[in-house]
Amino acid sequence: MMKKTILVTSLACAIGLGGQLSIAEAARNEPITPIPVQDKVDAPKVELGKKLFFDPRLSKSGFLSCNSCHNLSTGGADNLPSSIGHKWQLGPINSPTVLNARFNLAQFWDGRAKDLKEQAGGPIANPGEMASTHEIAVDVLSSIPAYIAEFKAVYGDKKVNMDRVTDAIASFEETLVTPDSPFDLWLKGDDAALSEEAKAGYDLFKNKGCIACHNGTGVGGTMYQKMGTVKPYTDTKTLGRYGVTGKDADKYFFKVPLLRNIELTAPYFHDASTWDLAEAVKMMGEYQLGLKLSDEETNKIVAFLKALTGKQPQISYPVLPPSTNKTPKPDRG
Amino acid sequence: MMKKTILVTSLACAIGLGGQLSIAEAARNEPITPIPVQDKVDAPKVELGKKLFFDPRLSKSGFLSCNSCHNLSTGGADNLPSSIGHKWQLGPINSPTVLNARFNLAQFWDGRAKDLKEQAGGPIANPGEMASTHEIAVDVLSSIPAYIAEFKAVYGDKKVNMDRVTDAIASFEETLVTPDSPFDLWLKGDDAALSEEAKAGYDLFKNKGCIACHNGTGVGGTMYQKMGTVKPYTDTKTLGRYGVTGKDADKYFFKVPLLRNIELTAPYFHDASTWDLAEAVKMMGEYQLGLKLSDEETNKIVAFLKALTGKQPQISYPVLPPSTNKTPKPDRG
Repeated sequence: MMKKTILVTSLACAIGLGGQLSIAEAARNEPITPIPVQDKVDAPKVELGKKLFFDPRLSKSGFLSCNSCHNLSTGGADNLPSSIGHKWQLGPINSPTVLNARFNLAQFWDGRAKDLKEQAGGPIANPGEMASTHEIAVDVLSSIPAYIAEFKAVYGDKKVNMDRVTDAIASFEETLVTPDSPFDLWLKGDDAALSEEAKAGYDLFKNKGCIACHNGTGVGGTMYQKMGTVKPYTDTKTLGRYGVTGKDADKYFFKVPLLRNIELTAPYFHDASTWDLAEAVKMMGEYQLGLKLSDEETNKIVAFLKALTGKQPQISYPVLPPSTNKTPKPDRG
Repeated sequence: MMKKTILVTSLACAIGLGGQLSIAEAARNEPITPIPVQDKVDAPKVELGKKLFFDPRLSKSGFLSCNSCHNLSTGGADNLPSSIGHKWQLGPINSPTVLNARFNLAQFWDGRAKDLKEQAGGPIANPGEMASTHEIAVDVLSSIPAYIAEFKAVYGDKKVNMDRVTDAIASFEETLVTPDSPFDLWLKGDDAALSEEAKAGYDLFKNKGCIACHNGTGVGGTMYQKMGTVKPYTDTKTLGRYGVTGKDADKYFFKVPLLRNIELTAPYFHDASTWDLAEAVKMMGEYQLGLKLSDEETNKIVAFLKALTGKQPQISYPVLPPSTNKTPKPDRG
């Protein structure tokens, strides 16, 4: 009995190893790299960050949470031209997805936050978005014993401050990756994972020059580029990167958006000028590359883009600890 | 071997049966009954209903879902004086919790919907809430192939209509129950489940007369009562049940709210006149029973009320199918 068990185990190992080797050998050397297997995470911190991400009490009104505009049900964005903020203010720019945002070189369209942690504090205190202040946000959380206990468990003492709040939110956001898209499976060596049309679309994506900006793990997010490199773009009000650097050369420059899960995050571009992915592809050809893509070419590229939709994060919806009599009251305005 | 297995199984059965009998014997005969074990559910219908419950595309703006005001992270309500609707309209009345709502004799504060299915269609088309129309809601869902496939799987054909939409939402809502609160465990015979203070509070709850209206499985929801039975209540603008029946005798009558999870759903009463559960208890004593409850009595009753917080539903946050080029666009107004 014992002998037989060992034999079977060894055989399974051999098959497993063989399988891994053959995939490793076949893995393709491409300018887009698969989303890596998730690192080990600090589970209690991620859990705290998830609660904060979904907690509407971080907004002045008690109604808006991070998830309101970066909705994990809908590709990590809100599928609106621009987000709806406090008192129904309409934001100036399309909400970028939080999914795979860790692969961006910086956060926001203009890159004004160096990382997810720095980003997380922005909307909470932005008068047009969640419209709270960092002081009130900390007061709210500090009034809730169950939150204090979680901060203590994660950070070693009971202190609640924005450094910890944004650190926890960022830790959660870092888990929001979408591995195993058909394209990634193909990248890893599975020839059958990608349709012929999508493969042809990927070849076009490379040969026409899209890949020059949309590359890396996020298929974007690695650089800033001018919207309207070849042909001047129509929206000349939103100045992009110029707002951060003050340099004329940075006018109309934006962070190249991630194309991962792009099928899920219409409307497209910083100004949401189209809801149609095919039209978005044609516009990119025209404004960025000086190309007129045919319908056939466009459809192939769209098939490739749809193959970038990965496994969405499985989120257990958090149960938030109740407010107390000491909790500052929401103010709907 | 065979014999031994049978013996062990029989023994296990005997123990199991013995355990059940002893709990049944100990189970208390009280005017509040434990939340029953969940019936078997139609899993695909519940899953479809969950998606619809969380889908902001059922609102005109594409921003508000059922969950916006009946947030399953926060006790199935929004913890606001009244809900925020389309274009930040503030509603006329406090949002009741969806948790255990199946135990209500009818839905809404004034009971104008006979059940959860009838209720579900209301907010979608209410211009002050989700502000869509049933026609547009059906058009949106019908434009999304993955939704059509789910309707077909659940209802046998591809037809999407409001009857099915509200049926699916109601099926999901019927699963939103919160069993195994400390009080329910005590009701089922576990003496140690309830603190002495909470037991004393329950005795007061019965002896002072609260139980006359707050009884049954939901600890409320079984009748309509006048707000201000003994002492006229201050809010005389909201007419309650009168709006449904047109009878003068129904003025200021409201459905008696559920007290399950009451700790999670501040602020209190149809007009959210207090955020403080102890104050709410005192007000009920004064307006409904003509009693002045002492601080000590009030604290005991509050301890009992907090023992009504049950296990919150475990929700796997849904991933919604993407819109298509045919999907009517959201209108933020």
